[in-house]
Amino acid sequence: MSFTLIPREEKFFDLFEAQADRIVLAAHSFKEILQSWNVHSPLVEKIRDIEHEADITTHEIFDKLNRTFITPFDREDIHHLASKMDDVIDLIQGTVSRMHRYQVSQVTEELIQLADVLHQSAEAVRKAILALRDMKKSRRIIEYCIEINRLENAGDQVQEMAMGKLFSTETNPIEIIKWKEIYELTETAIDMCEDVANAIESIVVKHG
Amino acid sequence: MSFTLIPREEKFFDLFEAQADRIVLAAHSFKEILQSWNVHSPLVEKIRDIEHEADITTHEIFDKLNRTFITPFDREDIHHLASKMDDVIDLIQGTVSRMHRYQVSQVTEELIQLADVLHQSAEAVRKAILALRDMKKSRRIIEYCIEINRLENAGDQVQEMAMGKLFSTETNPIEIIKWKEIYELTETAIDMCEDVANAIESIVVKHG
Amino acid sequence: MSFTLIPREEKFFDLFEAQADRIVLAAHSFKEILQSWNVHSPLVEKIRDIEHEADITTHEIFDKLNRTFITPFDREDIHHLASKMDDVIDLIQGTVSRMHRYQVSQVTEELIQLADVLHQSAEAVRKAILALRDMKKSRRIIEYCIEINRLENAGDQVQEMAMGKLFSTETNPIEIIKWKEIYELTETAIDMCEDVANAIESIVVKHG
Repeated sequence: MSFTLIPREEKFFDLFEAQADRIVLAAHSFKEILQSWNVHSPLVEKIRDIEHEADITTHEIFDKLNRTFITPFDREDIHHLASKMDDVIDLIQGTVSRMHRYQVSQVTEELIQLADVLHQSAEAVRKAILALRDMKKSRRIIEYCIEINRLENAGDQVQEMAMGKLFSTETNPIEIIKWKEIYELTETAIDMCEDVANAIESIVVKHG
Repeated sequence: MSFTLIPREEKFFDLFEAQADRIVLAAHSFKEILQSWNVHSPLVEKIRDIEHEADITTHEIFDKLNRTFITPFDREDIHHLASKMDDVIDLIQGTVSRMHRYQVSQVTEELIQLADVLHQSAEAVRKAILALRDMKKSRRIIEYCIEINRLENAGDQVQEMAMGKLFSTETNPIEIIKWKEIYELTETAIDMCEDVANAIESIVVKHG
Repeated sequence: MSFTLIPREEKFFDLFEAQADRIVLAAHSFKEILQSWNVHSPLVEKIRDIEHEADITTHEIFDKLNRTFITPFDREDIHHLASKMDDVIDLIQGTVSRMHRYQVSQVTEELIQLADVLHQSAEAVRKAILALRDMKKSRRIIEYCIEINRLENAGDQVQEMAMGKLFSTETNPIEIIKWKEIYELTETAIDMCEDVANAIESIVVKHG
């Protein structure tokens, strides 16, 4: 009967992979948008579209959970992983949206660095998701998760540095409020990649 | 033996429903308090009382978990759902408490709109909790959860707008700090309703 | 065969206890550092070291999960508890690091009080972890968790008071931004102790 069983499982992996691709695409677009920042950049709209598509995929996963009898992992783990992946994209979109709202005129070197860490973390998330199809690769999956943890620490350090510079050079408190939030949102997007890694690790650990 | 079994299960539903009623009551009182805001409003005290009662119910649920052999859902899911429901009420009370502490003299139209979204979300939480007694209604429960997700997006948009207006009209940075926090706390209360929805969805998905 | 089984279980408890000791040590060092605050205090370095060791232990727990067939609790609960314990230490270190970055010259009475609540909560976490070896003590474990919840409420009240005083006495918005964040980070460390308590309670409830 496995010929009916396997396709069902495959479909979940397909959806997770599509979502992982979107995480990478959103993170990449965010990095790109910063390289020549302009509140009217068409990339603002592009990131909004990615976020919208990600929402649809998230609901497709939830819906499929309710229609599928046999799932590759525990149902609540699929639900949790899908929610966390959606959070990453929401946060990237939220950061851009806030920058747009605040009419940011120029980006900082530190934000570009944070976006770069986020992009690296997104790539590691994609690799971990791709490896998830084959639980025999659990060792490798764990290594990607450790890499995501390492990147989260790296992001923390860039953020620390960014905050130090912000408070020592900026004298306008309103600019401090805005930039503090932009850095925090970007750092939270990196944290959310770590939450995805934790969700993946938790699945691997169960099936380990 | 089901005559001893069912009453036990019922009791958990009774407690969750009492808690859902309190979420609606707290959200409704919050909306009401804003309509004629006054730091000395007796509603400040009322919301504190609701929060206190919610704490007692949360501990009653936890205590019952430790004394009950057979539970309607997995024990950890009951624990998780109860914690998340408590969080919503904590946050509503925390927002009012912060407004009181900051001696806010006048509320904004945007805060009233956010409170309205929160109230709608609280109503949807109650409906989902009521439907939880009958797992055959899983389709309907999921629909309430989708509605809560939709409201969370709506809340995000109101908050975006509120922040934009705040930064473009307010020139006193201390007022910006206060109002930014008030908006964020209210938006987090709406987020917490989504966490409740996720906890419910996760239970439904397991039993689907 | 229990002579091979038990040692394996013991090892997880050893690691959790080592981590609980570090939570207490970090919270205690934080309290100590505040008593004679000085950005060049060697305790800043000490807390960074504790955080680094905690990271190593966290990975040791994760690694052991992947090599151990039989675990004392569900694998995902061990993973979750270990993550949450790590978060407490991360936050203490993060608070000190931010104070250092902001070149804080003098600490407030309210921060010392918050640090004291955090230290009490850390002690209760340690007691709960110690009691976890013997599930027959579930009643007592729950009591420690209730104590941690109570301390979290106490912390909220101190923070409320601290914020009120900050906004009514400080006129420099940049100082307000810095102190608001320092109070929030400390309060979040106390919240994270509550997350640890929730993770413990959830384990006890499953095995209750």
